[in-house]
Amino acid sequence: MSAALPPVPRPQETVDPPELLQLGTGTDADEPCLRADAARNRARLLEAAARLVAEHGAAGLTMEAVAAAASVGKGTVFRRFGDRTGLLTALLDHSEKKFQAALLRGPAPLGPGAPPVERLRAFGCAMLRRCVDEMELQLAAEPSPDRRYTVPPRRFLRGHVALLLRQTLPDADAELLSHTLMAYLDPALIHHLTEQCGVPLSRLETGWLDLVARVTRTDPPR
Amino acid sequence: MSAALPPVPRPQETVDPPELLQLGTGTDADEPCLRADAARNRARLLEAAARLVAEHGAAGLTMEAVAAAASVGKGTVFRRFGDRTGLLTALLDHSEKKFQAALLRGPAPLGPGAPPVERLRAFGCAMLRRCVDEMELQLAAEPSPDRRYTVPPRRFLRGHVALLLRQTLPDADAELLSHTLMAYLDPALIHHLTEQCGVPLSRLETGWLDLVARVTRTDPPR
Repeated sequence: MSAALPPVPRPQETVDPPELLQLGTGTDADEPCLRADAARNRARLLEAAARLVAEHGAAGLTMEAVAAAASVGKGTVFRRFGDRTGLLTALLDHSEKKFQAALLRGPAPLGPGAPPVERLRAFGCAMLRRCVDEMELQLAAEPSPDRRYTVPPRRFLRGHVALLLRQTLPDADAELLSHTLMAYLDPALIHHLTEQCGVPLSRLETGWLDLVARVTRTDPPR
Repeated sequence: MSAALPPVPRPQETVDPPELLQLGTGTDADEPCLRADAARNRARLLEAAARLVAEHGAAGLTMEAVAAAASVGKGTVFRRFGDRTGLLTALLDHSEKKFQAALLRGPAPLGPGAPPVERLRAFGCAMLRRCVDEMELQLAAEPSPDRRYTVPPRRFLRGHVALLLRQTLPDADAELLSHTLMAYLDPALIHHLTEQCGVPLSRLETGWLDLVARVTRTDPPR
């Protein structure tokens, strides 16, 4: 099934130029020369940054806070990400990859192995929670209207929903319905409902299960 | 199916009051003193501008073209709207008011008097055609993410959908479902589907009727 999905546009795991800058300087003994270690360290910094955003919001994310949370020097964070914008971009990309991996290879029902309607239910609930956790990041990264539906992460997620819909409703217009389901999960809408209208996440989750049931003409889970 | 579609709100063929423009000096005397006449003249200029946008797109809309299309002097258009931005703003507002009037007081099924599911169907089809006709205006006027769901025209239209949903589905979460239906009619999405994906309007209309049927758990119109 995953073979039918469009190839995920993967930001390449490039040899991190900052790594190359460290060779021989002596100030960076915490920078391993081995690529696997470099990737692990980068991931560790991003996990620390993600935790900070989830706990304190993106507005409070500083290079210093990430360094402290990951127990490395501040210079390491600057060398890895350049500046705060670079860190935020890397953070979203990292979160996107983790989420895509969960859909493609993670445990059911978010990952493969469950009936498509169950996977749709799990997908929306996971997206809602992710969106609430990363609200500021997601809003800050919103593309302009002419690019909103064509940026690679969006295409991947929408394609995933369309695939599950086609498996459930072979005769329906899965392309159009997938846009409708994705629209329910739009960060700007979720922000409006949770922040401006005070709608609790639990109601959004119930609403998602109800919407999936209506769209697929099935019963909501008991 | 097209017989079941709602009437397209047509720019009114107003009774032309150009004679009023001739009074007096030809500088400012072309501004009629009577308020009703002024309002009619303003409406006539906006109808001319709307026709130009529908025919040639917003990018080609100039004060000169509006003056020519309405058979008035260029100065009249500038005095009424200040500049091109003022004209575009007035144009959207004018279109919005006409559409709201059609929903509140126009003929069924877009206006009152038809069952709520029929009114929902008519609403979406009219919105789709309006959006395609006014695409550039609508895209240019898109509010920022934090205002997208709170600007008055959007609130009015979404409230209309929620009302019709509550009449159809008294036990459903009409607030959340109304956001979902409105999202299908989002100008940026319609632009993406029609311009970037080549989806014809007829497929979007069929998709809308299908979505209304699924959401309300009814049968689509024959």
